[in-house]
Amino acid sequence: MNKSIIRYILGHVLLLSAAMLLLPAFTGIIYLEAEAIAYFVLAALCFILGKLSTHKKPESTTFYLKEGCISTSLSWILLSLVGCLPFCITGEIPSFTDALFETISGFTTTGASILSDVEAMSHCSLLWRSFTHWIGGMGVLVFLLAIVPLSGGSNINLMRAESPGPSVGKLVPKMKYTARILYIIYFGLTLIETIMLLFGKMPVFDSICTAFATAGTGGFGIKNDSIGGYNAYIQWVVTVFMLLFGVNFNAYYLLLMGNAKKAARMEEVRWYFIIVTASISIITISLCRSAVPFVTAVRDSSFQVASIITTTGFSTTDFNTWTETSKTLLVLLMFVGACAGSTGGGMKVSRFVVLFKTVFKELDSYIHPKRIKKITIDGKPVEHEVVRSINVYCITFMIVFVISVFIVSLEGKDLITNFTAVAATINNIGPGLELVGPTQNFSGFNTLSKYILMFDMLAGRLELFPLLILFHPAIWRDFRPSHSKKH
Amino acid sequence: MNKSIIRYILGHVLLLSAAMLLLPAFTGIIYLEAEAIAYFVLAALCFILGKLSTHKKPESTTFYLKEGCISTSLSWILLSLVGCLPFCITGEIPSFTDALFETISGFTTTGASILSDVEAMSHCSLLWRSFTHWIGGMGVLVFLLAIVPLSGGSNINLMRAESPGPSVGKLVPKMKYTARILYIIYFGLTLIETIMLLFGKMPVFDSICTAFATAGTGGFGIKNDSIGGYNAYIQWVVTVFMLLFGVNFNAYYLLLMGNAKKAARMEEVRWYFIIVTASISIITISLCRSAVPFVTAVRDSSFQVASIITTTGFSTTDFNTWTETSKTLLVLLMFVGACAGSTGGGMKVSRFVVLFKTVFKELDSYIHPKRIKKITIDGKPVEHEVVRSINVYCITFMIVFVISVFIVSLEGKDLITNFTAVAATINNIGPGLELVGPTQNFSGFNTLSKYILMFDMLAGRLELFPLLILFHPAIWRDFRPSHSKKH
Repeated sequence: MNKSIIRYILGHVLLLSAAMLLLPAFTGIIYLEAEAIAYFVLAALCFILGKLSTHKKPESTTFYLKEGCISTSLSWILLSLVGCLPFCITGEIPSFTDALFETISGFTTTGASILSDVEAMSHCSLLWRSFTHWIGGMGVLVFLLAIVPLSGGSNINLMRAESPGPSVGKLVPKMKYTARILYIIYFGLTLIETIMLLFGKMPVFDSICTAFATAGTGGFGIKNDSIGGYNAYIQWVVTVFMLLFGVNFNAYYLLLMGNAKKAARMEEVRWYFIIVTASISIITISLCRSAVPFVTAVRDSSFQVASIITTTGFSTTDFNTWTETSKTLLVLLMFVGACAGSTGGGMKVSRFVVLFKTVFKELDSYIHPKRIKKITIDGKPVEHEVVRSINVYCITFMIVFVISVFIVSLEGKDLITNFTAVAATINNIGPGLELVGPTQNFSGFNTLSKYILMFDMLAGRLELFPLLILFHPAIWRDFRPSHSKKH
Repeated sequence: MNKSIIRYILGHVLLLSAAMLLLPAFTGIIYLEAEAIAYFVLAALCFILGKLSTHKKPESTTFYLKEGCISTSLSWILLSLVGCLPFCITGEIPSFTDALFETISGFTTTGASILSDVEAMSHCSLLWRSFTHWIGGMGVLVFLLAIVPLSGGSNINLMRAESPGPSVGKLVPKMKYTARILYIIYFGLTLIETIMLLFGKMPVFDSICTAFATAGTGGFGIKNDSIGGYNAYIQWVVTVFMLLFGVNFNAYYLLLMGNAKKAARMEEVRWYFIIVTASISIITISLCRSAVPFVTAVRDSSFQVASIITTTGFSTTDFNTWTETSKTLLVLLMFVGACAGSTGGGMKVSRFVVLFKTVFKELDSYIHPKRIKKITIDGKPVEHEVVRSINVYCITFMIVFVISVFIVSLEGKDLITNFTAVAATINNIGPGLELVGPTQNFSGFNTLSKYILMFDMLAGRLELFPLLILFHPAIWRDFRPSHSKKH
């Protein structure tokens, strides 16, 4: 294993952390908060450690899928460990486990919180919390790819490990430019949302934090009632932008290139909007029947459907009190998730489209056993290997899900709480139902359950395998000193 | 499509129904019940209709998987329609929907009931209810294969459509003899259980009905408290036999052939007993902690684990009041199910073994991309096609499951009721949790939900595809008169 490249990448992650920590640090200065010192000190430390690790160039910059996966999962773990320190140092989240939970929840764009009073936090820590969403949404390694020179075509393995969806599409032949284009679109959309929010008379600080959390489809609110306290215009803006950030970014690239027709023909994006529209309609009808006024029903259902399917996790109302039909539908949407190649989590619409097509193909094979039919997406046949890996992904997902629910259930909480807590973390959503409903938080779990849920958040964000292979015995053997000389 | 063979098979199903209806009819005579008349009349009608349909031999006796699937699902639907008539005629279940639900629940060995007072039924109807389990357990077409001369090797397609598990193992080269051996083992075990129950001072009628319901892993009790009212010895006998009927019948064949070593080495059977032992231990500990005496905890947990994993569905206690850990574990066991090639339902242990191995293989491929590793069961490599079909099965199962939960949720019942009602029917178990818990019944659902649950019971018993292809447009076209000349 090419360990020097892993060290090199982790060093760059530290340098990046240092840069990122400056944003909350300066915010603290603006608001004259003592907490800013913690951010400055930590940024300096990260910078020194990062410089030390990246001082020596790696012997070889080529690496395979294995190294890609390990660098990715280790980077995310390192990032979370660094990121949680300010909360511990400032004492705003005294427990290390809780601080780590909050930070992992931030970077993985989950938005599940252990805080019962968000508004008590300092401005710099609130900004840091929301900023982790923004970084985690598009991916920290995608960002590194855009700026760090890693020669060799094999760096697609990094992007493959970090980017959501069954297959990574390069927009342009060079990975570096693909990464840059993605970040430019991402930054542009975030900026537009911030401006739109400012139009709605939202304070500047609130607008920036909300835009960060929407862009990363994260869901940390800076108010105790999430988005519920803002006016209807702001709620609609957030709804629209949540949906936009759940769209496959390839569509935006096609739009930028003037190829609107091709963008509109993208099968996954179409299905995404069909599911969204159908779900909003069903929930609106269901709410109207239980005497909610039509305008409120449309707004609340649109907001909540957008929030759940894009796995953002904002809330404007306590959907735990909604009708059973609506709640069931929201739970199902948790698993669907947004489009591949977006910042959203979940299993992704494209995977479901392929799974449904697999079932229809199977039925066909019972009737015409000799006819060979290929599954197609956007009119192009899907590689057998992609179909197989989607099947395996789906099965692995179920297994991780079931084991997590079982371990969390050891605590004795009710089944719906456990089921939706795991669903909300592994799909990177945030709130679930019952004890983890939108008006509640995750602080009630014991330490074991919290670590399981942290694992689920990371597993969900990195799409299982990059994280799971860390537990493979062969990897442990590779990291033993005696093996350090081997490939 | 070879329609004449389908007609011929359905005719034989009617003849078989006529024979089966005689058992409750004669029981009714013994107990001097007026309801017996209904059974005699219906038996006569089935005999006449059956004779008419089988009078003309089919032009060709060869048929493909398509015909196998269609004959199987139509046979099961026909059988259920015929089987529910006695309940309607005698007025013991006045509603047709309810009678059909009860009968499908019987034949599919689910054991979900709409009756709140079972003990009010006549003896002949109680016996008929339990007897449907026995027939459904091993399969009605397997029985036909054992007695009806259907030349041509292609009748394995019938067995493939009806028998549970990912692949059908022929015990002996001839299908006919395989079917006979299976029924002999089945009958033998049922007989032994009846005798063992008689030893425990259980009345003869109760023993026969209980043995029928255990053998088919059905779960209809003839008492309102299921098996709870019987003594501890009887409960232990039922526990042991439930577990025995959940074992792959190939193991018994190997035992009969004196090959005990090979039987003990069967991987699926081993995992089955490991899962059972682990689950009993966990639930016993969990119950003991909530102050249940140890002996009761062991007996109750063993009974309930055996009842759920074999998908029988008997109960000795209201497990809806158990700890959350225990309930979660029981819900998980619902999906695992018994061994392939047993009378149990669920997804089958062997499928899970293959799924887990698929995940480990995938992890390996990340680390050694070039090493080709085959999944093995019992030391033999599993065909790629079998692995693929297990994946597809698992995905189709999830999709049917999710759609069913959603439709049932339209009624507005709570999520756990809906979730476990669908889980308990599609896995052919019987009771679920909350409103469909062991002390409750399914009569509270509306007609739409009942039909969805009936569909799920049949889909679960026939393992999805044989039933699902009935909805394929190509099949409908085939049944249009204008196409009658085409193959």
